Amino acid sequence: MKDDASFSVLTGNNIDARPVKAGGVIFREGDEAHELFVIKSGEVRIQIGNRTITELTADCVFGEMALIDNEPRSATAIAITDVELVAVSEKQFLFLVSQTPYFALKVMRVLAQRLRATNKTFG
Amino acid sequence: MKDDASFSVLTGNNIDARPVKAGGVIFREGDEAHELFVIKSGEVRIQIGNRTITELTADCVFGEMALIDNEPRSATAIAITDVELVAVSEKQFLFLVSQTPYFALKVMRVLAQRLRATNKTFG
Repeated sequence: MKDDASFSVLTGNNIDARPVKAGGVIFREGDEAHELFVIKSGEVRIQIGNRTITELTADCVFGEMALIDNEPRSATAIAITDVELVAVSEKQFLFLVSQTPYFALKVMRVLAQRLRATNKTFG
Repeated sequence: MKDDASFSVLTGNNIDARPVKAGGVIFREGDEAHELFVIKSGEVRIQIGNRTITELTADCVFGEMALIDNEPRSATAIAITDVELVAVSEKQFLFLVSQTPYFALKVMRVLAQRLRATNKTFG
């Protein structure tokens, strides 16, 4: 398994990207969730309350948790710079997982890295 | 997607289970990892240092993180009671992910739930 946890395969084509201005809220903690996002360009901050969980750049994925467990958003996502996002619907997500095991492993790797980072922060 | 995050499919057959006596260490933080485990019977505590992360019962999975990201064990696993474990090798894990998208989703759901629990504990 490779270490690369980027999702450039989803942002490299001529996929319609959703622009968000710097400072814009992409989703809020507690929102219902219908899609995950891959960052095509720009930087995004993930925070719970006022605590920054992580800052993400191009080819990173976020918003996958709510899609996986059907719970409301566990954190808030804010555009640090102007960003372009590729949205992946729940249906597309399930298709990708079922058709491309490599995609599933990449999502698992992202979750595992976040858990390790969280455990280190608070351990 | 169902809420059921158990892995009973892996423990229901006549699969060889590995017995561990109450108090026995299944793996230690920092160990190299070559397999994940599904609990066939008994209870297992996952801890980092002296801090209990979670306690798991039959049909739960643990030890999947190190297999996903090829890092050393991030926590220690100890048998609370006498337990029977089904070991899943990295090769078997990759086979399950590639052949059964439902398995991949279940593993993702376990990781997402642990992240939510961790964020709640420390949020």
